[in-house]
Amino acid sequence: MDLLLDFASSFFTQLRSPTLAFLIGGALLAALGSKLTVPDAIYQFIIFMLLMRIGLHGGMEIRDADLTALALPALMAALTGIICVLLGWATLARLPGIRFDDAIATSGLFGAVSASTLAAALVVMEQEALIYEAWAPALYPFMDIPALVLAIVLASLHAQKRRVAEGGDVGERPKVGVWKIIKDSLRGAALSALLLGIAIGLFAEPGRVYEEFYNPLFRGFLSILLMIMGMEAYSRLAELRGVAHWFAVYALLAPIAHGLIGFGLGYIAHITVGFSPGGVVILAIIAASNSDISGPPTLRAGIPSANPASFIGSSTSIGTPIAIAVCIPLFLALGEMVFGT
Amino acid sequence: MDLLLDFASSFFTQLRSPTLAFLIGGALLAALGSKLTVPDAIYQFIIFMLLMRIGLHGGMEIRDADLTALALPALMAALTGIICVLLGWATLARLPGIRFDDAIATSGLFGAVSASTLAAALVVMEQEALIYEAWAPALYPFMDIPALVLAIVLASLHAQKRRVAEGGDVGERPKVGVWKIIKDSLRGAALSALLLGIAIGLFAEPGRVYEEFYNPLFRGFLSILLMIMGMEAYSRLAELRGVAHWFAVYALLAPIAHGLIGFGLGYIAHITVGFSPGGVVILAIIAASNSDISGPPTLRAGIPSANPASFIGSSTSIGTPIAIAVCIPLFLALGEMVFGT
Amino acid sequence: MDLLLDFASSFFTQLRSPTLAFLIGGALLAALGSKLTVPDAIYQFIIFMLLMRIGLHGGMEIRDADLTALALPALMAALTGIICVLLGWATLARLPGIRFDDAIATSGLFGAVSASTLAAALVVMEQEALIYEAWAPALYPFMDIPALVLAIVLASLHAQKRRVAEGGDVGERPKVGVWKIIKDSLRGAALSALLLGIAIGLFAEPGRVYEEFYNPLFRGFLSILLMIMGMEAYSRLAELRGVAHWFAVYALLAPIAHGLIGFGLGYIAHITVGFSPGGVVILAIIAASNSDISGPPTLRAGIPSANPASFIGSSTSIGTPIAIAVCIPLFLALGEMVFGT
Repeated sequence: MDLLLDFASSFFTQLRSPTLAFLIGGALLAALGSKLTVPDAIYQFIIFMLLMRIGLHGGMEIRDADLTALALPALMAALTGIICVLLGWATLARLPGIRFDDAIATSGLFGAVSASTLAAALVVMEQEALIYEAWAPALYPFMDIPALVLAIVLASLHAQKRRVAEGGDVGERPKVGVWKIIKDSLRGAALSALLLGIAIGLFAEPGRVYEEFYNPLFRGFLSILLMIMGMEAYSRLAELRGVAHWFAVYALLAPIAHGLIGFGLGYIAHITVGFSPGGVVILAIIAASNSDISGPPTLRAGIPSANPASFIGSSTSIGTPIAIAVCIPLFLALGEMVFGT
Repeated sequence: MDLLLDFASSFFTQLRSPTLAFLIGGALLAALGSKLTVPDAIYQFIIFMLLMRIGLHGGMEIRDADLTALALPALMAALTGIICVLLGWATLARLPGIRFDDAIATSGLFGAVSASTLAAALVVMEQEALIYEAWAPALYPFMDIPALVLAIVLASLHAQKRRVAEGGDVGERPKVGVWKIIKDSLRGAALSALLLGIAIGLFAEPGRVYEEFYNPLFRGFLSILLMIMGMEAYSRLAELRGVAHWFAVYALLAPIAHGLIGFGLGYIAHITVGFSPGGVVILAIIAASNSDISGPPTLRAGIPSANPASFIGSSTSIGTPIAIAVCIPLFLALGEMVFGT
Repeated sequence: MDLLLDFASSFFTQLRSPTLAFLIGGALLAALGSKLTVPDAIYQFIIFMLLMRIGLHGGMEIRDADLTALALPALMAALTGIICVLLGWATLARLPGIRFDDAIATSGLFGAVSASTLAAALVVMEQEALIYEAWAPALYPFMDIPALVLAIVLASLHAQKRRVAEGGDVGERPKVGVWKIIKDSLRGAALSALLLGIAIGLFAEPGRVYEEFYNPLFRGFLSILLMIMGMEAYSRLAELRGVAHWFAVYALLAPIAHGLIGFGLGYIAHITVGFSPGGVVILAIIAASNSDISGPPTLRAGIPSANPASFIGSSTSIGTPIAIAVCIPLFLALGEMVFGT
């Protein structure tokens, strides 16, 4: 009951936050047929600015941190990513009328992590003055990469089994390059910017350029990014209509289920190694998020037989809005209830 | 005499203002053959940033405003737009050697409103600490849309009459979609950003992102936009040479005449419902301005038979520089004289 | 000995400066195959923002300056550019296996000036509170243009001599348009922005837009530009492998040699007309730099027979990193030693 009240109050505060207002505004503009667009060059620049800022901040703070404390939460993040994909494999992939490859690609995308949801969560947590370890945003790749790798490996194993069943030669099976998928993920534009930011924050003295440039522009660029995501969400809805309804159902429920898994595993880390309450909430929110920048191209390349309309449509049109509009207030409220902050 | 002195002093202050310096600088660069260009993606982003800022500011201020006070000024704005187009129809369109469609498209563009002139005027008014109703910049669409709609309707009626005169069948006349023109105007990139900004300002709490991002970047982006407009003004001059000289004469005089009409109608609203002096000046300046972002494509589509060199050339090369360099100081000085502020 | 110690300390401080960290980070990203790129529109916008800021600042400060003091340093800058090209003509062009046109184009590029190195130097000098004449950054074109003009003229004379030796008709020799090269240089995007900034700073009142927009964004945009240059440096290394090794040796040594020439001539101006210590260091650093924005296209057009891989490869991959990472701390240390500041 308390949770519901907390969630409701947090949800309505969020509704009036510019974060959500820009998301909804973008969707409205697209729905009303507005010709307003943000050029792709600006979109790419915004992604860079946001992740460089998150990275620099993390890197500068990590310097004095005790990094052994990172081990268990990082493991929990990886475990969350893996469980989320397995959950999709055990549910969505078994449903009638669903192609295995479409289901597993969708699970991979929902197991992976969204940079924009992470950025939006950090803004809200800063407002609520919730304390978390400086390295907590750096849990991102620990969840993102295992989810994408596992999804691609499962799709490949399935394809191979099918070929065997069809009497194909086992000897000619193509190898799935796990290391190649990991490298491709790390080389993506979003993760590259995040990791470069962390490295510069760690080894150089970017304090002034962070304070004067990357930090003050953070909220503003985030507002524009969320407007773009709202526009995208609306314009992809049509795509979603062409695929099975189960994808929409999955996209509605998976963020909440995944967030609970992340929260639970984070809570174990809280009890055992003292992972901060704010860190647990971040883990839950990135678990609830689905990859919107680097995930889609990785999965397109890794599972070429999957229909992008299914996984990108459900993630962009339903998954992201649910993650930002519902899961951020939900897990903040849950954190408040559990940790009593 | 006082007006002239006030105008002269205001004009020379303006000349040294960065606003005008960037406009003149852009024209000079183009005249000297500089290869400096601002990429189109940046141009679109700047338009978005300026109109979102104007919108957010208006929206946040409107909240406490008495919106019934908006009714008469909005009507006056619409009336101004309509009278400006009719004035062009009664003068420019009757001149020898002028095609009707070219004249009416030009009148439509000069009756419509320029976002960049509005932005430049707001910066100057803030410097001069002239007070105006927060919703005054939102008078923009009330003038812009009627002007564009009327121009397109007049052009269509004219085409139809011609067809009848030529013995064509009246039954087959194509309908002019007035509602379609209105929708297209509202969906344009500039108006969309303005209206989204107003909505977010009204219903959400964008105060912080406004203060940290949209407001501080406003003057800077405006300076770049004005440089671009200066470049455009020079490079379109050549186009203008190909059309009748009357277009140049019209482009020189119309901004001042339209501004006076706007000022007069605004003054009536001042006397009857207490419309603020600053609001009257804004009404005069947006009346003096001509549409540079959304107007041209709307008119190209709505009056396809009109020659773009005539209406875009005269508006970009002469109308906009006159509106910014002459009309802003002129109507500020007139306001000072009339209202004694 | 003192110089070495000073240089070493300055070098290690620099290594931790964000300037260098972003340069190295960009090169690392490229080496690791990252897909992160900065769109060309953003790159062009950053160049504009940096040079407009340097120009505005210079222009505003020049107003009260005694411009007769500019004469000798400007002459020294021109002399430096000319001597650098002649040095390349006397050394690189005489080496075995080196085509004359490639060598002279490379010398021209290394004699010309880099806007990004200049910007990086200004940031460091501001940190070290080194005082210099406000017009010192405006020495840029005085060195840049003579170097480019001389290289193109030398290449053209050489081509002509060859034609005569081959029995060609001297009467049909094409003229080298010196004035055309100068105009093309001045019209380049970088110099145009710099000169427009100086003009606006001189004649208008851009103080507020400078303080609110161009100045606060300076360091941030510079950090992104340096990341781009690091990426470029790595990706051009492959090109460099295809050309003679002498280009790599030249690119390693020329920045230091050119910087010493600039320092020496600047020192003469210091003794004779009291050119500031900071000004001497700026002269040395712009002498050490090589043109990365406007130089390459000018030389491609002016010496079409030269192989771009030789001059762009050596300058982007080796010259620029050496200028920023080695020459900035080196000439700061030398300045400290010589002037005892």
